[in-house]
Amino acid sequence: MRGGGGAATARLAVAARAFSSAGGGVAMVQGASRGIGLEFVSPPPAPIHIPPHFAPSGSPVPAISLHPLPCGSGGQVRQLLRRRDQGRVVATCRAPGSAAELQKLKEEHAPGRLTVLPLDVTDETTIEAAASSIQETHGSLDLLINSTGILSIPNVIQPETTLSKVQKSSLLLAYEVNAVGPILVIKHMWPLLKVGGRSETGRGFSLVANISARVSSIGDNGLGGWHSYRASKTALNQLTKTVSVEFGRKDNIACILLHPGTVDTDLSRPFQRNVPKDKLFTREFSVQKLLSIIDSVKKSDNGKFFAWDGQEIPW
Amino acid sequence: MRGGGGAATARLAVAARAFSSAGGGVAMVQGASRGIGLEFVSPPPAPIHIPPHFAPSGSPVPAISLHPLPCGSGGQVRQLLRRRDQGRVVATCRAPGSAAELQKLKEEHAPGRLTVLPLDVTDETTIEAAASSIQETHGSLDLLINSTGILSIPNVIQPETTLSKVQKSSLLLAYEVNAVGPILVIKHMWPLLKVGGRSETGRGFSLVANISARVSSIGDNGLGGWHSYRASKTALNQLTKTVSVEFGRKDNIACILLHPGTVDTDLSRPFQRNVPKDKLFTREFSVQKLLSIIDSVKKSDNGKFFAWDGQEIPW
Ligand SMILES: NC(=O)c1ccc[n+]([C@@H]2O[C@H](COP(=O)([O-])OP(=O)(O)OC[C@H]3O[C@@H](n4cnc5c(N)ncnc54)[C@H](OP(=O)(O)O)[C@@H]3O)[C@@H](O)[C@H]2O)c1
Ligand SMILES: NC(=O)c1ccc[n+]([C@@H]2O[C@H](COP(=O)([O-])OP(=O)(O)OC[C@H]3O[C@@H](n4cnc5c(N)ncnc54)[C@H](OP(=O)(O)O)[C@@H]3O)[C@@H](O)[C@H]2O)c1
Repeated sequence: MRGGGGAATARLAVAARAFSSAGGGVAMVQGASRGIGLEFVSPPPAPIHIPPHFAPSGSPVPAISLHPLPCGSGGQVRQLLRRRDQGRVVATCRAPGSAAELQKLKEEHAPGRLTVLPLDVTDETTIEAAASSIQETHGSLDLLINSTGILSIPNVIQPETTLSKVQKSSLLLAYEVNAVGPILVIKHMWPLLKVGGRSETGRGFSLVANISARVSSIGDNGLGGWHSYRASKTALNQLTKTVSVEFGRKDNIACILLHPGTVDTDLSRPFQRNVPKDKLFTREFSVQKLLSIIDSVKKSDNGKFFAWDGQEIPW
Repeated sequence: MRGGGGAATARLAVAARAFSSAGGGVAMVQGASRGIGLEFVSPPPAPIHIPPHFAPSGSPVPAISLHPLPCGSGGQVRQLLRRRDQGRVVATCRAPGSAAELQKLKEEHAPGRLTVLPLDVTDETTIEAAASSIQETHGSLDLLINSTGILSIPNVIQPETTLSKVQKSSLLLAYEVNAVGPILVIKHMWPLLKVGGRSETGRGFSLVANISARVSSIGDNGLGGWHSYRASKTALNQLTKTVSVEFGRKDNIACILLHPGTVDTDLSRPFQRNVPKDKLFTREFSVQKLLSIIDSVKKSDNGKFFAWDGQEIPW
C-alpha cells in the first residue's frame, strides 16, 4: 500500500501535511500508533479513490484536491509541497518500541523531522514527560491533534446494546481514555501551545483538534446504545468547549472538535457489518478531509465541532 | 422553620407531592438526605415568597399555585390534597441513620408512607439492595427522581477556575457520582419502572427525572470553568438521552432532565456570593416548579431537558 521508491521523499512531504498550516512549526499527533492518528502523521502518496457522493458539495470548507501528494494540483497541495522540508512532527503512542510504522517513518525522514515519544493518556506522568521533552527539543507547539480513543477492547469494554449491559467499569474506562486523557494532554501542552502559533506558521494561532465522534451529539442521538463511548465523547465535547472559552479569553489558541466519519480502522472493524461500503471511509480520505478543515479553520471557529465534510454538528 | 401543630398532617400531604401525578403509586427520591432531594420528599406547608419576576410567564408548563399545600387553590394542589392518603415515597441516602430530617418525616407519617433506604451511588451493591427492597415492599416504581450531585467537597474536589487546576481525580469523581451513579440507579430500578406507571396513577407511564444543571449545556457554555462538574452533567444528559431512546422503543417509561435553577443548598452555598439575591431560589420554590413539570410532562417529552420554568435547555 505504501511501497515503492521515493517513498521517503513523498512521506517527508506528507508528514508535513499534519501541520500544513503550521509551515515551519511543530505539530503533535497524540495516539499515533495506528488508525487515524498514524494517518495524520503520514498520509500515503497514492491517489485516493473517492466515491462520487463524497465530492465536496456546498461545504463551508474549501474543496481540496482529491489527489493527494505528490500528484495534487490544488492551491493547498502546492502549499504543502512548498513546505515539505519544513515543519516537525511529534508522534506519541503508548509503546513507541512496537510502533513499527512510526519507527519506519522516523528512519525515512531527516533527523528531527519526526520525533516519537511515549504517552499513555491514562498515566499523567507520561504526559508531563512528553511535554518536557517537547519543551527541550522544540520549545513550542503549533498544532495538537488528540486522536486517541477506545470503543471496544475484548474482555474489557464493549459498546452497550442496552441499559442492562451498562457496567460502571466501562463507563469509567471510556471516560478516562476518551475525555480525561485528551484534556490532560492539552493541560500539559498548554505552555507550549501558548508560545506556538507565531505568525510565520501561516495560521497565526495555535490549534488543538480533538477527534470526537458524531455519536457524541445528544441532539443527534436517535439510535441509543453505546452508552460508555457516547457519554465519554459528549464529555470530551463539553471539556473542549470549556477549554476553548478560556483560550479564547487569554491565549492565541483555538480548540476544535472533529468527527472523522466512519473510517476503516481497528476501532470500527467489529462494527462495520451494517455500514454500506461506500459510507466506510479510508483513513486516507478521512484524514485528508480533516486536514482541510484544520488548514482552513479560523480563530472564530474556536470551540466548534465539525464533521469531515466541514458541516457543524449540533451538540 | 417547619415546626407547629398539624405539621405531620400537612407533611403527609406534601410528601405525596413528590409523586403527585403518581397518585397511589410509588415514588423514589434518590439523594434525599439534604437539599433539593429532601425537599422533593417533603416541601414545607408554609406559603412561599416568590420574587415577582419568577411568576410564570409564557412558560409551556401550566402555572402552578404559588401557595403550596395546604393553602393552595389551583387544580393541581387540589389533586394533591385529594391524594394525600395515597402514594408511597421511598427516600434513599448514604446514611439513613444520620438523616435526621428523613427519620423525623418517617415517624410523623403513617407506617409505609415513607421508606428510607441506604443507597450510595458509588457502591452498586447498595443500589441493587435498594432495588430488591423496593421490589419486596412495593413491587413497582412510578417515579424515580435522581437528585444526588456533587460540585465541591473540601480537600477532595473544587470547581476548577482554569484548565491548569483540572485534576484527573476530580474529573473521575464527579463523573462517578453525577453521571455513572444515576444511570446505575435507573439500570437497577428499570424492572420496577417497567411494571409501574399503570393508568390509575394518572400519568399513564413511569417517569425518571434526573436533576442536571444548566451549566451542562455545551451550547450555553459561554463562561468556561467548572470542568469536572460541567462534563459530568453533560455526560448525564447524554446517558439520559441514550436511555430515553431505549425506553421510548420498548417501555412505558419516559426520562427527563431538570435544571432546578440556582437553589439555596449546601451545594451552591460556597458560590452564592455573585448570585443576585432575587436569583437565588429557595428549595421550596425550585421543587414546586420542578414538580409542576413532573406533573405535566407528556410521554412525548421523553429525553428532553427542562429548566425550572419549563423552558427547554439546548444541549
Ligand atoms: N474509526 C472510526 O470510524 C471513528 C469514527 C468516529 C470517531 N473516531 C475517533 O477517531 C479517533 C481515532 O480512532 P481510530 O479509528 O484511529 O482507532 P484505532 O485505530 O483503534 O486507534 C486508536 C488509537 O488510540 C490509541 N490509544 C488507546 N488507548 C490509549 C491510551 N491509553 N493512551 C494513548 N493512546 C491510546 C491506540 O494506541 P495503541 O496502539 O497503543 O492501542 C491507537 O493509536 C478516536 O478518538 C475515535 O473515537 C473513529
Ligand atoms: N443547588 C443548586 O443551585 C443546583 C443548581 C443546579 C443543579 N443542582 C443539582 O441539584 C441536585 C441536588 O443538589 P443540592 O443543591 O440539593 O445539593 P446538596 O444539598 O449538596 O445535596 C446533595 C445530595 O447528594 C447526596 N450525595 C452526594 N454523594 C452521594 C453519593 N455518593 N451517593 C448518594 N447520594 C450522594 C448528598 O447526600 P449526603 O448527605 O450523604 O452527602 C445530598 O443528599 C444535584 O444533582 C445538583 O447538581 C443544584
